[in-house]
Amino acid sequence: MSQDDHILLIPGPICVSEAVREAQSIQSLSHTSPAFISIFQSALKDLRKLFKSTNEKDQGVVVAGSGTLGWDITASNLVYPGDNVLVLSTGFFSDSFADCLRVYGANVDVITAPVGDSVAISEVEKALASKKYSVITVTHVDTSTAVVSDIEAVAATAKKISPETLIVVDGVCSVGVENIEFTKWGLDYVLSASQKAIGVPSGLSVGFLSERAIKRALERPVQSSFFASLQRWLPNLINFEAGKPSYFATPAIQTVNALRVSLKEILEGGLDARFQKNKEVSQKFKKDLADLGISIVPVKPEVAASGLTAAYFPEGIDGAKFIASVYQKGVIVAGGIHKDLVGKYFRVGHMGVSALDPKLGHIDAAVRAIKEALEEQGFKK
Amino acid sequence: MSQDDHILLIPGPICVSEAVREAQSIQSLSHTSPAFISIFQSALKDLRKLFKSTNEKDQGVVVAGSGTLGWDITASNLVYPGDNVLVLSTGFFSDSFADCLRVYGANVDVITAPVGDSVAISEVEKALASKKYSVITVTHVDTSTAVVSDIEAVAATAKKISPETLIVVDGVCSVGVENIEFTKWGLDYVLSASQKAIGVPSGLSVGFLSERAIKRALERPVQSSFFASLQRWLPNLINFEAGKPSYFATPAIQTVNALRVSLKEILEGGLDARFQKNKEVSQKFKKDLADLGISIVPVKPEVAASGLTAAYFPEGIDGAKFIASVYQKGVIVAGGIHKDLVGKYFRVGHMGVSALDPKLGHIDAAVRAIKEALEEQGFKK
Repeated sequence: MSQDDHILLIPGPICVSEAVREAQSIQSLSHTSPAFISIFQSALKDLRKLFKSTNEKDQGVVVAGSGTLGWDITASNLVYPGDNVLVLSTGFFSDSFADCLRVYGANVDVITAPVGDSVAISEVEKALASKKYSVITVTHVDTSTAVVSDIEAVAATAKKISPETLIVVDGVCSVGVENIEFTKWGLDYVLSASQKAIGVPSGLSVGFLSERAIKRALERPVQSSFFASLQRWLPNLINFEAGKPSYFATPAIQTVNALRVSLKEILEGGLDARFQKNKEVSQKFKKDLADLGISIVPVKPEVAASGLTAAYFPEGIDGAKFIASVYQKGVIVAGGIHKDLVGKYFRVGHMGVSALDPKLGHIDAAVRAIKEALEEQGFKK
Repeated sequence: MSQDDHILLIPGPICVSEAVREAQSIQSLSHTSPAFISIFQSALKDLRKLFKSTNEKDQGVVVAGSGTLGWDITASNLVYPGDNVLVLSTGFFSDSFADCLRVYGANVDVITAPVGDSVAISEVEKALASKKYSVITVTHVDTSTAVVSDIEAVAATAKKISPETLIVVDGVCSVGVENIEFTKWGLDYVLSASQKAIGVPSGLSVGFLSERAIKRALERPVQSSFFASLQRWLPNLINFEAGKPSYFATPAIQTVNALRVSLKEILEGGLDARFQKNKEVSQKFKKDLADLGISIVPVKPEVAASGLTAAYFPEGIDGAKFIASVYQKGVIVAGGIHKDLVGKYFRVGHMGVSALDPKLGHIDAAVRAIKEALEEQGFKK
């Protein structure tokens, strides 16, 4: 068994387009060949557009790995051992990021939002005023709660109260589906992964660094990592983007090619139109759930993410049975992983082609399957 | 430009089989689905066979990344800060491994072999007797020199003189083409990558750990890495191999599937027959070069690797022009990267389908292109 004909609607990995699949299947290329340099250069240039960067000294980061590797990149390059780091937690992934920061010697303070909500800006202000933080991290969309944080407001707060604090955004479940204005908002590092709204097979850590984040990484006197070291990667990435061969470690040739193709697809219709369209799909889906008597984890519309929905099983519904029944009807949704809510909710991803190509009928199929699965358990609104 | 119709004969990435390409192009799967668990389980089980492991407490390691990540895995799990590590260097990659070990706080002693040779066992004996080393590292085949080290002899020496020293083998350019008897020789960690003789697209760190290496990693009181931490990966890998869903970081779904398919292909004809066949192809190729008046970098047949050939440009040949001319004739070979020899030699990979499927005609094409490129520069033996 190596294929699955069910519709994959978990919050990543997501279904990729046929063009991306084709790009993923090219024969191997030399990692220093003109053919591959041109591929990697295109992807790195298009990342600037994806992040709406207007400072040419910013730099895209594409490294074989996963979203998690972006935490190591943060912790071992932008934070010095003993530094204070403020983590805004909206769920499982924010807390794991904090764990990673501690491994590399950071003193971490965590502000935990109420489940289903984001951290209040007043809390951020208070914390930043109380202590010198070298980095603040915020999970743009925590995949465990489907809560979106207002990273523009967080960044503005940090700039006002503690301008030298670097602003790091975990954008694993947001890049490609939520608006990010990297330069305008003054972000320093957004880390992400290939397999969610970027629409590529899993296998890449994809991120974007500001000029001042690069400066901090390059000035670092002592390295805390090797594979995650920006001092080692930056010359490589800069060379590739300039069209020059370079070597630190072998890139994931095929997946970088898939990234190139997906970025073209993402950018061709205009980013804002894409975000708006995905938001509409998300709102429609959430309304369909509400009509079925299902309420969502985010406590108010402003904190509900566009790329996925986390929703409670209605009273009396057996969650495991429900997910299995939805699967039998051809649709794969995910269980919940937030420690306070395990077993009480499920998650549905609506990113990439599944959300934006209505011909595929993925979201309609999900609504139908969910409706029938509820009915099977005798649930009535 | 995203394809290249030239024959790729660098020492990795190598050409992959059509079945592997197809496996690489499957639609994304949930990383915790039965479909993917079955894929990953198959790959992890077959890794045991590839390494000829007979201890079920050994464990295969497959993580999205590259060969380089295996160095971080060694340095941040098997070595404690302040530990002594003995590095046997046969070229560029051995030296880079030493750099990585130092980043994580190891005290590294390097024994450097003469260019084109491996480190003498007497040197290894002397060093191991002089100091307590927690780890010895040996690069099985250094891709910069095409020298193969006798890892069986190194392991036997370590066991005799310093039995508690862990034996780590960099098998990036050897696993899948050189014989490795993991259990019999008493190795502790062999690190490799997907894109060389394992015959898979780049993007995976692939390795194998002994029971005592696992013990050392699990007993470690303080972690030095997060993404490279075996305390975090081992439960995940053990679960997947047991057919159970697990999560630490999202695996590279498609590339793991390609690994599954390639391992089946590698194992189906018998490992020893495969190694023998590749050795014959290698010896024939080296003889063809000798007939053309080209001598190889390894100083004696016993240290010449089977998976690639590093060969000097004959006197009077312009190396850059030669490689460009070979390229024009449809074959991609690589320049040299050993610091003492840059510009003086070239490298040809002969691994995987390129070496073992004579119908492809890759090696014949290489010999022809090399012959003609020499003639173009007026070279006569």
